[in-house]
Amino acid sequence: MGQLCGNLTGFTGRLMEAMSTENSTAPDGIEKADNCFLIEWTGYGPDGYEELTLNSVAAAKEKLAKYPVNWINVEACKDPLIFDQFRVAFNLHELAVEDCTTVHQRSKVEDYRSHLFIVTRMPLHMDSGETEQLGMFLGDRFVLCFQDEEGGDCLDTVRERIRKGYGDIRNHGSDYLCYAIIDAVVDAYFPVLNKLSERIDNLEDVILESDRKDISAEIHKMKREVLSLRRAVWPLRDAINTLVRDSHPFLSDTTRIYLRDCYDHIARIIDLVEMYRELTIDMMDIHLSMVNNRMNEIIKVLTVITTIFIPPTFIAGVYGMNFNPEVSKFNMPELNWFFGYFFALALMIFTSIAILALLRSKKWI
Amino acid sequence: MGQLCGNLTGFTGRLMEAMSTENSTAPDGIEKADNCFLIEWTGYGPDGYEELTLNSVAAAKEKLAKYPVNWINVEACKDPLIFDQFRVAFNLHELAVEDCTTVHQRSKVEDYRSHLFIVTRMPLHMDSGETEQLGMFLGDRFVLCFQDEEGGDCLDTVRERIRKGYGDIRNHGSDYLCYAIIDAVVDAYFPVLNKLSERIDNLEDVILESDRKDISAEIHKMKREVLSLRRAVWPLRDAINTLVRDSHPFLSDTTRIYLRDCYDHIARIIDLVEMYRELTIDMMDIHLSMVNNRMNEIIKVLTVITTIFIPPTFIAGVYGMNFNPEVSKFNMPELNWFFGYFFALALMIFTSIAILALLRSKKWI
Amino acid sequence: MGQLCGNLTGFTGRLMEAMSTENSTAPDGIEKADNCFLIEWTGYGPDGYEELTLNSVAAAKEKLAKYPVNWINVEACKDPLIFDQFRVAFNLHELAVEDCTTVHQRSKVEDYRSHLFIVTRMPLHMDSGETEQLGMFLGDRFVLCFQDEEGGDCLDTVRERIRKGYGDIRNHGSDYLCYAIIDAVVDAYFPVLNKLSERIDNLEDVILESDRKDISAEIHKMKREVLSLRRAVWPLRDAINTLVRDSHPFLSDTTRIYLRDCYDHIARIIDLVEMYRELTIDMMDIHLSMVNNRMNEIIKVLTVITTIFIPPTFIAGVYGMNFNPEVSKFNMPELNWFFGYFFALALMIFTSIAILALLRSKKWI
Amino acid sequence: MGQLCGNLTGFTGRLMEAMSTENSTAPDGIEKADNCFLIEWTGYGPDGYEELTLNSVAAAKEKLAKYPVNWINVEACKDPLIFDQFRVAFNLHELAVEDCTTVHQRSKVEDYRSHLFIVTRMPLHMDSGETEQLGMFLGDRFVLCFQDEEGGDCLDTVRERIRKGYGDIRNHGSDYLCYAIIDAVVDAYFPVLNKLSERIDNLEDVILESDRKDISAEIHKMKREVLSLRRAVWPLRDAINTLVRDSHPFLSDTTRIYLRDCYDHIARIIDLVEMYRELTIDMMDIHLSMVNNRMNEIIKVLTVITTIFIPPTFIAGVYGMNFNPEVSKFNMPELNWFFGYFFALALMIFTSIAILALLRSKKWI
Amino acid sequence: MGQLCGNLTGFTGRLMEAMSTENSTAPDGIEKADNCFLIEWTGYGPDGYEELTLNSVAAAKEKLAKYPVNWINVEACKDPLIFDQFRVAFNLHELAVEDCTTVHQRSKVEDYRSHLFIVTRMPLHMDSGETEQLGMFLGDRFVLCFQDEEGGDCLDTVRERIRKGYGDIRNHGSDYLCYAIIDAVVDAYFPVLNKLSERIDNLEDVILESDRKDISAEIHKMKREVLSLRRAVWPLRDAINTLVRDSHPFLSDTTRIYLRDCYDHIARIIDLVEMYRELTIDMMDIHLSMVNNRMNEIIKVLTVITTIFIPPTFIAGVYGMNFNPEVSKFNMPELNWFFGYFFALALMIFTSIAILALLRSKKWI
Repeated sequence: MGQLCGNLTGFTGRLMEAMSTENSTAPDGIEKADNCFLIEWTGYGPDGYEELTLNSVAAAKEKLAKYPVNWINVEACKDPLIFDQFRVAFNLHELAVEDCTTVHQRSKVEDYRSHLFIVTRMPLHMDSGETEQLGMFLGDRFVLCFQDEEGGDCLDTVRERIRKGYGDIRNHGSDYLCYAIIDAVVDAYFPVLNKLSERIDNLEDVILESDRKDISAEIHKMKREVLSLRRAVWPLRDAINTLVRDSHPFLSDTTRIYLRDCYDHIARIIDLVEMYRELTIDMMDIHLSMVNNRMNEIIKVLTVITTIFIPPTFIAGVYGMNFNPEVSKFNMPELNWFFGYFFALALMIFTSIAILALLRSKKWI
Repeated sequence: MGQLCGNLTGFTGRLMEAMSTENSTAPDGIEKADNCFLIEWTGYGPDGYEELTLNSVAAAKEKLAKYPVNWINVEACKDPLIFDQFRVAFNLHELAVEDCTTVHQRSKVEDYRSHLFIVTRMPLHMDSGETEQLGMFLGDRFVLCFQDEEGGDCLDTVRERIRKGYGDIRNHGSDYLCYAIIDAVVDAYFPVLNKLSERIDNLEDVILESDRKDISAEIHKMKREVLSLRRAVWPLRDAINTLVRDSHPFLSDTTRIYLRDCYDHIARIIDLVEMYRELTIDMMDIHLSMVNNRMNEIIKVLTVITTIFIPPTFIAGVYGMNFNPEVSKFNMPELNWFFGYFFALALMIFTSIAILALLRSKKWI
Repeated sequence: MGQLCGNLTGFTGRLMEAMSTENSTAPDGIEKADNCFLIEWTGYGPDGYEELTLNSVAAAKEKLAKYPVNWINVEACKDPLIFDQFRVAFNLHELAVEDCTTVHQRSKVEDYRSHLFIVTRMPLHMDSGETEQLGMFLGDRFVLCFQDEEGGDCLDTVRERIRKGYGDIRNHGSDYLCYAIIDAVVDAYFPVLNKLSERIDNLEDVILESDRKDISAEIHKMKREVLSLRRAVWPLRDAINTLVRDSHPFLSDTTRIYLRDCYDHIARIIDLVEMYRELTIDMMDIHLSMVNNRMNEIIKVLTVITTIFIPPTFIAGVYGMNFNPEVSKFNMPELNWFFGYFFALALMIFTSIAILALLRSKKWI
Repeated sequence: MGQLCGNLTGFTGRLMEAMSTENSTAPDGIEKADNCFLIEWTGYGPDGYEELTLNSVAAAKEKLAKYPVNWINVEACKDPLIFDQFRVAFNLHELAVEDCTTVHQRSKVEDYRSHLFIVTRMPLHMDSGETEQLGMFLGDRFVLCFQDEEGGDCLDTVRERIRKGYGDIRNHGSDYLCYAIIDAVVDAYFPVLNKLSERIDNLEDVILESDRKDISAEIHKMKREVLSLRRAVWPLRDAINTLVRDSHPFLSDTTRIYLRDCYDHIARIIDLVEMYRELTIDMMDIHLSMVNNRMNEIIKVLTVITTIFIPPTFIAGVYGMNFNPEVSKFNMPELNWFFGYFFALALMIFTSIAILALLRSKKWI
Repeated sequence: MGQLCGNLTGFTGRLMEAMSTENSTAPDGIEKADNCFLIEWTGYGPDGYEELTLNSVAAAKEKLAKYPVNWINVEACKDPLIFDQFRVAFNLHELAVEDCTTVHQRSKVEDYRSHLFIVTRMPLHMDSGETEQLGMFLGDRFVLCFQDEEGGDCLDTVRERIRKGYGDIRNHGSDYLCYAIIDAVVDAYFPVLNKLSERIDNLEDVILESDRKDISAEIHKMKREVLSLRRAVWPLRDAINTLVRDSHPFLSDTTRIYLRDCYDHIARIIDLVEMYRELTIDMMDIHLSMVNNRMNEIIKVLTVITTIFIPPTFIAGVYGMNFNPEVSKFNMPELNWFFGYFFALALMIFTSIAILALLRSKKWI
């Protein structure tokens, strides 16, 4: 319950009226206490606009008559009964309503004579590939939206346009509102992609500079996000393309020109997503190459230290042998040389330097 | 034989009647003893429904008249003679019947004027990519299904809908039943994919944490399953698309709208399968990267221990030389120093610490 | 010559008649001695069938009148003159005949008004990706086949169907025979793929269990075979699709329905070939991963042995130094301790155990 | 402001006139002081041509009447007000003007009855994959260009053609000018690709000869550039294809033939970009292979040095043991041999040579 | 100049006549001295054929009247003036002539009402992926070819066919000549591919047997050649497809059937090129795997030698310690054992054998 009511906070800054029309539905009000949910309604026309938060389907239905365009927005509704009330009140197709209740739909457009049903997915956060489903019914005088998640969405620009009357929106019909919403949804992907691009750049820097062990996991995570985004935007492109290409009674040709613009945006988004995908694939290769390079560095140092000390150690071993110099003048005469010790040390230093010179001549150090 | 009879257990909870119509086919009954197989028949219409388990094709044929929609389901039948009886009784096309007897068909739709023949593949288990073939004939008043394997299937939701009359199913024709079956088949992939997703997540965790030697085999096995699933779902999409796109006399436009919904589901399934495929490919890379990282860890420790001990060992070797201090004051005078031993030990410790400092300055330890 | 005659053995079990019609072509018979080649002719109709082995083009031409369908099969013919005789006798297009003489054609269908020319490739052996070219001319009353290689082919099922009259083949025209041949060719790929699948499974087992050096060469060889198969089956699909899709005067609609079935089979074959291709690509990765894993194993053991012995060796080196205990009580007093030797051995054992414990704590051994 | 004025330097060598028509817009002039921007106008016809630098939209509008073709070029304009003036003056579509103000558009063609709107991207520098957006409006008598960046562009060849009257350009309409601009944009990619090809060749040489650590970063950078170029040229191909394929009232068939030529050029560019992409992918593999080869070289030398010194060191250790030769004739009798020392040295040299011979027999050194 | 004259040697074995028609163009002759270039002209018809080497465009133009088919071949012409003469004389389209002068065109077909313009690329050498551009104009009575490079080409078979009258070529029109040239160009790829296939096979053998350091560079070079070939043949396929598919006034239906044959050949060539591409990609993996395997071999030997000598060296170190046996009976009593030395040697041998046994039990040696 609190979950459904919770979206009240999402409506911050909007009018919340005790509506007289609601008073007549007192018994509904009681039921509402159990099952509190709120309908964000915005009606507008060339003459003005009005925003209300309603709490019953019947109230929303009643509002339709007043303005030529009515935007009804429902957030995070999970109650099948309410969906059914909407179905009856707005004469929606059963399958479309069902699709709204299941939350992992792909973006698509479906034409049920009396209304168009459009599913889109909008990004949830700036910094992940997660998306939220937005089911939209476009009818003669209304656009009915069902958002999957409560809380903030990317449609505030649309609300602002209606309030301020920007872009002549109030003189257009419900199809233009539908375009405005789709446009807002599509444009909401750009900040996500910018954020992603930034993170990819950061990760690339990290890859080139460090060999933290968790990097391959991080690259994999990023790739999953890109794949997830990709899975969201490709069907969106197809859906918008359907809207642009096919003629629908509710979509004026003018609006279709605007939707063509959305199509260009989503095409650009797809270009970027595909590019990021290639880059993430690439990053794994670079990471492995970097790890390899660092290992080479370590192996090299080991080589140098080991190969520098091995010959002197051998020489020390030789002069540590216990051959008896007394039984033969050939038995380790160096041991009795006046500068024998210095000779041995010189031999050691010479071999070490020789090895070093060899390694340097090969450009290994 | 027992194999054919075995599917009786699959019919648990359904009515098993001694039918009067069967009594007249006593000679068949004798042959049946040898070749026991059972036909699950469900007839329904707006007025009611009836479920029976029949044991001859003739009986099934006879039942057709009573209800407007008849669902005849045959499991794991391998006997060509029975297929031939069905072919004659229901006027099926020879090629379609042949396809039912071979068990590795791809999903497809074929239009033989008097009936539609639809092959789909439904998942066998939750935790593998294996699928079972379901051949379906859609005729005027009947849907005739041949399942490849005996035992449970994913059609119980359809049976339940018929029994309970959910979704108005009893008021629709056989094409709606056909849709309901395809819908059930398609939706049966979702739990399989959920399970797969879980297993992929688990495997990813294992990959990131351990270097078990059998992991690459396991990734390969998972990839095979994904490939196998993929091979099942792509043709299914094409088949459903054919149903949605092409107009057939037995498929009403209403049902085609419902099938469009199936199409969306299968498109989503394909999205997921393709994503899982990418992830499994990726996992191999991560696994190799992890194995590499661990090897680097080991090599590093070896490097450290070896390079720390090599210089002191060399110093010990030097002072183990047997140069005679008596013949010259330059021959290893340290041996006779008062703090010679401490000097040597200090030298050893110093070189070790110097090496350690070098390694640490390179951030290798 | 012997090469051309050699296919007589390929006709084992078939009738070989001294034909009266051949007697009149005695001068041909002399030329035949130089250039012996044999034409396998099968004529049939609803009323019966006849099989003969002819040795001149003229004889084959003469046979056409007797039966409504005539199958003329020529194996491993390389002589351009004979091809030219066929060209004239059957009114074939020059380009099509040329294609028959060059043996690396892709599968295709070409419509020369008076006849259809179909090239397919059939598998040569069960255990390789090699294929043999089969050029086929479909005319009004005849199917004329040119096989590239002598010896066995995959068309025995067709011969059997004609002899036994299975599948009503004798009541159909030459287009049905053409379908039957294509069907036999397509189905001949299934055993090849089964064999391949088996070999892939075997190779996977070998890869997971051993590190034989020749495995990567073997995987490469298998991949080449898969690529070669792939190169054979993709054009075959296109060719069959052309037959199914385009209407030709010689192809009845009924036969086109049968060819649709062939198309499904070839689509399945392509699915499998593509899957095997992915698996072979994957196998190389797994092989490399396995080789890497084994190398890690070896490196680990080296690490353990080396790092266990290095510190004790150092300690032994310390107590092998020759510092003079007589000049100072600080010079290696351990040498004169009562349990000095045991102390040193204990030190050695302790450091080794400490290293082992360290390695075990890291789970490296 | 300075930013807008800055493009004056880009107009070097062109006429800069104080126009009388501007005098009447004195108040504009004041606003201009704040918001200085310049419009490069070129008008031409069969009879002559004229080039001016204007500083108001109104002035540009006025010029249209004089010549049949007018090219108006605006660089780096960011002021929405100016865009709006253009929109009103030239009757442009709001969406198209919006697209000009956002700088990351994909290349595209949009048909707004009264004008065609074409977005292309032209390369910024010779040595990077960066591109600059060029929005172009093709109207009845004008081509209106908005360049994203100030400074030099690739359109000087077009300017030269107009001045010199090459290629009969002055006898063609505005569509031919539009073609000439697109042609210049497309051809501007060739030097970029040549430069890129050179850099790829250089990088390949570097890869094959050195193991600099930053190479993988460099390859990655180059790949990003190629991807970025690719992202610019693919949509450009689609846009030009649209112009070639679809008939527009402003595009004569003759011009469409010329555009077909552009299409061939862009197709060639795409071929090259795709090839470079494959080569960059490949380079990473080669780089890793080279790094691996060099590591093998180092490991080999380590192997040789270590394995050559280990056995002699062991022998020296043996003869450094302190077994007492006095208690037994079996205790290290070599120590008292006359040639004991030489024997030991010979043994050491022999084992080293044996090891060397073994390594050489394996062809490792 | 000498460059243009140089192709005279390319015409070896052809007639070189001092033509009377040329005498009238004496002033041209003088200009010719500066700008010597030669036109290979072949005219033929059902009644005969004639071959000449002309030296002016006008002469070539004059020749057109005599024979129904005229083949004019110009090699390595770089002079824009001559191209312009051709343009005027043969009424060619400006764009097509421009394309001839730029040497990196993709294969294409362009229909300029009065003539077809066809660009193809023919292989330059047997052993590289380089190609030479061949621009071809197909007009009513002529085929005009511009070859990019002087020297030999792959069109000698066409010349031979005309001379000998093979394949009825003299009874066909210029479109058939055009087909014959395209056919010769396409077939010229087969020897190149055979050579490539041989080189790939050789390289594979080298890869499997040696670890030469330059192999990865060689594989990369081969891949570049394959990519370059691929870039030449794909557009060629499209161009031929255009000829086959679209009807052109100059291309008779009969010739289109012949071109279909060319299309099959080029499709086969593409199949092969794609296969070689996959194989070259694969070869890099195998090469790396081989290098890895050899490194494993080396590491193994190092492991064995090192681990065999380390424990004995340690033992020698132990008995080289200087603990004083006189102060305690526990201090290294072995030194005074009768068989102490043998005991130590036995210990060393035993540990070495134990290590060897361990390694062998793991199947590492």
